[in-house]
Amino acid sequence: MRQFVIVGHDAPTDPEFPLDDLPGSAGRLDVLCRCLTAGLLVSHGVREDVRVHLVLDDAVTITVDGGSVRRLNPDERSTAALVRTALGHVEEAIGHQPVESTPGFEVRRRGLADTLDALAREGSIVVLDPDGDPADGESLPPDPVFVLSDHHPFADAERDLLDDRADDAVSLGPVALHADQAIVVAHNRLDVAD
Amino acid sequence: MRQFVIVGHDAPTDPEFPLDDLPGSAGRLDVLCRCLTAGLLVSHGVREDVRVHLVLDDAVTITVDGGSVRRLNPDERSTAALVRTALGHVEEAIGHQPVESTPGFEVRRRGLADTLDALAREGSIVVLDPDGDPADGESLPPDPVFVLSDHHPFADAERDLLDDRADDAVSLGPVALHADQAIVVAHNRLDVAD
Repeated sequence: MRQFVIVGHDAPTDPEFPLDDLPGSAGRLDVLCRCLTAGLLVSHGVREDVRVHLVLDDAVTITVDGGSVRRLNPDERSTAALVRTALGHVEEAIGHQPVESTPGFEVRRRGLADTLDALAREGSIVVLDPDGDPADGESLPPDPVFVLSDHHPFADAERDLLDDRADDAVSLGPVALHADQAIVVAHNRLDVAD
Repeated sequence: MRQFVIVGHDAPTDPEFPLDDLPGSAGRLDVLCRCLTAGLLVSHGVREDVRVHLVLDDAVTITVDGGSVRRLNPDERSTAALVRTALGHVEEAIGHQPVESTPGFEVRRRGLADTLDALAREGSIVVLDPDGDPADGESLPPDPVFVLSDHHPFADAERDLLDDRADDAVSLGPVALHADQAIVVAHNRLDVAD
């Protein structure tokens, strides 16, 4: 299974945001929506063996599972509506237990450290970082848990967490990409190598 | 220079569409907006040596030039607003002469055949097609004019045009991607090979 963790720094953790202003008052939620669709959708289909985790403000994590997700379309607005629905269920989430908001969408109260600790049991944590070592498809691990930042670089505390927990930090090329673009390239590297 | 031509089958050619319903009443304009940003934007910057051409309903072509574009943001809605502004200037376009609607955005009355004929003088026409030959970065031409279809396959008449005019038809991997995803991968192949 391929997994992607995207660290959202400005993103909302409650559903009180407008779908008409994703880059503004919704805290660049457009970035995170594009990461979801880049991770999960391909031409006329879903990548079933993929999970994408959005870590919002180090407090709430939304996990979308390609094997069970329904009604995920490629556009930002409808994707943001699914995220908003998920955030409407945060109040029901107790401890680290998830709540399913729509098919394939789970929301839980969990920050980055706990998310990484849970996922480290499922695969190898690989930071996607323009300053990392160049990676081709063959050099990537079989069950990667890729970690990316949104439009901001990782904060110092996040870098410390990742230094402790990551197996590797890799770059996908000489041009620094948007997070969603890096997800597309990572998938393609693995598709070609498989 | 890298160029991308995206054939939009359902897209509007006039500005009478709502920004709130890009996948619906705006004829999947969300797809074309993602192609623009995938072609032109990288992390905190613009690819200056790139042009993206949206061919709408074989009647109107919008060309966005990375060297001169301003106010292009990564989100679909604001990108669609720039496209809508361009379409508001179609009435001023005479013959094949372009009209600049905002910096770096030009609109002209030109369909696919004339667009390809003009671009064939500037580079090698390469169809991105899941059924094409596998391509790595080194095998791509130095000044590629990539041609892609939106969410529909190419129509038979378009295939005939491309059979006549294209230098090559290549695939970027075993998984059929969305048009914007294919643009991201093509850029990355070339970035790594350069």
